[in-house]
Amino acid sequence: MLARKTIRGLKPYEPGKPISELARELRIRESNIIKLASNENPIGPSPKAMKAVAGAIKEINRYPDGGCFYLKKKLASKLRLKTSNILFGNGSDEIIDIIAKTFLEESQEAIISKPSFLEYKIIVKTRGAGLKIIPLDESCSGFNYNIDKIVAAISKKTKLIFLGNPDNPTGAYFKKKELNYFLRKCPKDIIVVFDEAYRELIDIRDYSNPASYINKKNIIVLRTFSKAYGLAGLRIGYCIASSRIISFMERTRQPFNVNLLAQVAAEAALSDKPHLLRSRRLIRQGMRFLAKNLKSLGCDVIETPANFILFSCSIGKCKSRTARNQSGKKLHGGCLVSYKGIKGAAIFKKLLPYGVIVRSMKVYGLDKWARVNAGTMQENRRFISTLKEIIGAKS
Amino acid sequence: MLARKTIRGLKPYEPGKPISELARELRIRESNIIKLASNENPIGPSPKAMKAVAGAIKEINRYPDGGCFYLKKKLASKLRLKTSNILFGNGSDEIIDIIAKTFLEESQEAIISKPSFLEYKIIVKTRGAGLKIIPLDESCSGFNYNIDKIVAAISKKTKLIFLGNPDNPTGAYFKKKELNYFLRKCPKDIIVVFDEAYRELIDIRDYSNPASYINKKNIIVLRTFSKAYGLAGLRIGYCIASSRIISFMERTRQPFNVNLLAQVAAEAALSDKPHLLRSRRLIRQGMRFLAKNLKSLGCDVIETPANFILFSCSIGKCKSRTARNQSGKKLHGGCLVSYKGIKGAAIFKKLLPYGVIVRSMKVYGLDKWARVNAGTMQENRRFISTLKEIIGAKS
Repeated sequence: MLARKTIRGLKPYEPGKPISELARELRIRESNIIKLASNENPIGPSPKAMKAVAGAIKEINRYPDGGCFYLKKKLASKLRLKTSNILFGNGSDEIIDIIAKTFLEESQEAIISKPSFLEYKIIVKTRGAGLKIIPLDESCSGFNYNIDKIVAAISKKTKLIFLGNPDNPTGAYFKKKELNYFLRKCPKDIIVVFDEAYRELIDIRDYSNPASYINKKNIIVLRTFSKAYGLAGLRIGYCIASSRIISFMERTRQPFNVNLLAQVAAEAALSDKPHLLRSRRLIRQGMRFLAKNLKSLGCDVIETPANFILFSCSIGKCKSRTARNQSGKKLHGGCLVSYKGIKGAAIFKKLLPYGVIVRSMKVYGLDKWARVNAGTMQENRRFISTLKEIIGAKS
Repeated sequence: MLARKTIRGLKPYEPGKPISELARELRIRESNIIKLASNENPIGPSPKAMKAVAGAIKEINRYPDGGCFYLKKKLASKLRLKTSNILFGNGSDEIIDIIAKTFLEESQEAIISKPSFLEYKIIVKTRGAGLKIIPLDESCSGFNYNIDKIVAAISKKTKLIFLGNPDNPTGAYFKKKELNYFLRKCPKDIIVVFDEAYRELIDIRDYSNPASYINKKNIIVLRTFSKAYGLAGLRIGYCIASSRIISFMERTRQPFNVNLLAQVAAEAALSDKPHLLRSRRLIRQGMRFLAKNLKSLGCDVIETPANFILFSCSIGKCKSRTARNQSGKKLHGGCLVSYKGIKGAAIFKKLLPYGVIVRSMKVYGLDKWARVNAGTMQENRRFISTLKEIIGAKS
């Protein structure tokens, strides 16, 4: 057989179309499409970062600094850590891969939650290691970690535990007390990975801070410049851990994994506090607006402390007169007459022809839900009014 | 134990200092340092690519296109291939890693040459798979592949063979006839990886083209935008293989592995033929100049068909009066009185305080040699005159 045994069971990646291609197919102007599907920063990149990138373009014929020297110094100082506590990656995705190949033997196991960020599962399966999947607790108010269930799943084979803090797409997170409880129960030779892609956006009181335990426990905290810092396109994330853990990871990291422009952009973004504050303010405002208006449309809503929200629509009648053509054929990705429980995937399809992109949660096993992230207020309003039209809500 | 068994035997990566940091330490202006150490394109990035990057900066808050849709279409058309024959990576480095994790079981083996590009060895060791290392044939004119030795090393465990075409740092390459001979001898269930980072710079007649065999044999050809296209800082490489091989690799590739600016830059660079022609012309001119002048300084020289050259110095007396201070202490990284066989590492150290960076070949096991790449003609002249001063040659 050509490929490894474990690879043959994986599904090939199916890339989505770029927005410009979608625009061409739907015959909409690209500028008229709004994307609220990838939890990106709606106000754009930090102006300081953009300026730094522009200034470095003439140097892109040179290899990047393999050690992220200046960026690492700056970040370490900001976080009050040693530079030996930090490792940068081509997005957090690459760091998850580095973690798996550094620490996880094929004979060992990783524990992940369900639903959770999809890369953990893909990367563990690619390694060929075992996987235990622990469902989150679900209530009408949302999803929560069940720490006792996670602890009960730990065996002698367990090497890694991946936990979003908060997780995507449910927003489940570790409260301070929960973290203490969990770390007391968790055997010390296990490495616990807390993925904090959204930390800089969060302002809840009981939000735990696993990074403060890196010198006492085997903890790796993932952070990124893709969300609050608005640099998703450049691919740069980092992790925080003990110098010992980082030194092992350095052995498997590729020498030029972080591109030159990402390094200068991230360094500049760290200095751009006004951009971070504006981003946070706009996103919090957007989150309140979305929650309130989705509820008033009669949608079920799961709020998260990050910049995205889950919603499901189960009411109303279809008002759209153009939804079926004269021969009765469905338009706009299929229009149902009654909206008792429209699946998230259908909502996604219905919004698409209007140039509004949200995310179906089918791939996460949450068929009922769609995910939308806070955009600019103009984008948020357009999303709500389009949804209103589609589900035929009265309000 | 914390890390995997195979990782504990690897050396941690030791990053070099950025040029600006070196400048500060040596008290030289950064603009006065010339770097001829990483086989980069000396004329800089394509102007079209720079313009494209500048135009896309405002979009870096968005995730890149995970499928490299437009770039892949353009490259496929240029190479007369299907888009399904191409996969992009965060530099060729990442593609080597994808190949190892897609195809190489821990119980299997890879064959590499010695000396060769270092990443093959590191990545195979990280996988935890076996490694067979076949020395190149060495003669006074340089290094060559010994195909019979490679074929003889193949066993039932062999899954991958990594071969630079031409290889870095020796310039060994496959001639057309050698490729045919090798492919006839090589069992069909083995995947042969030809790394062609320098292809676009090469104009020798008998240079083989493994890419023309991708639909007949299990061959993967690596190419990059880091060398001829002058985009090393952005990290973008690609590989060419059968649709079947690519589809397996797509299962382990991370969805957003190639950053947004790299994609637009590479697409633009593919359209910038004048930049490519100018790069090629300048590099060929530089290679002739370096070979001629190194020889006239009495250096041993190994020319390569790419943009770098190996040299070793074994003649002359030290003329440098500042080379020892008054108390007899060595300056400039150590100055020997007689230069009978200066090691490459010493040449590197001696050139450094003059702001001239070349590469010691010690890490490749070629203690005698240093490597220099063709720079601008001004840089080439400065390198030669500095070397002349250092080795005290008469000419």
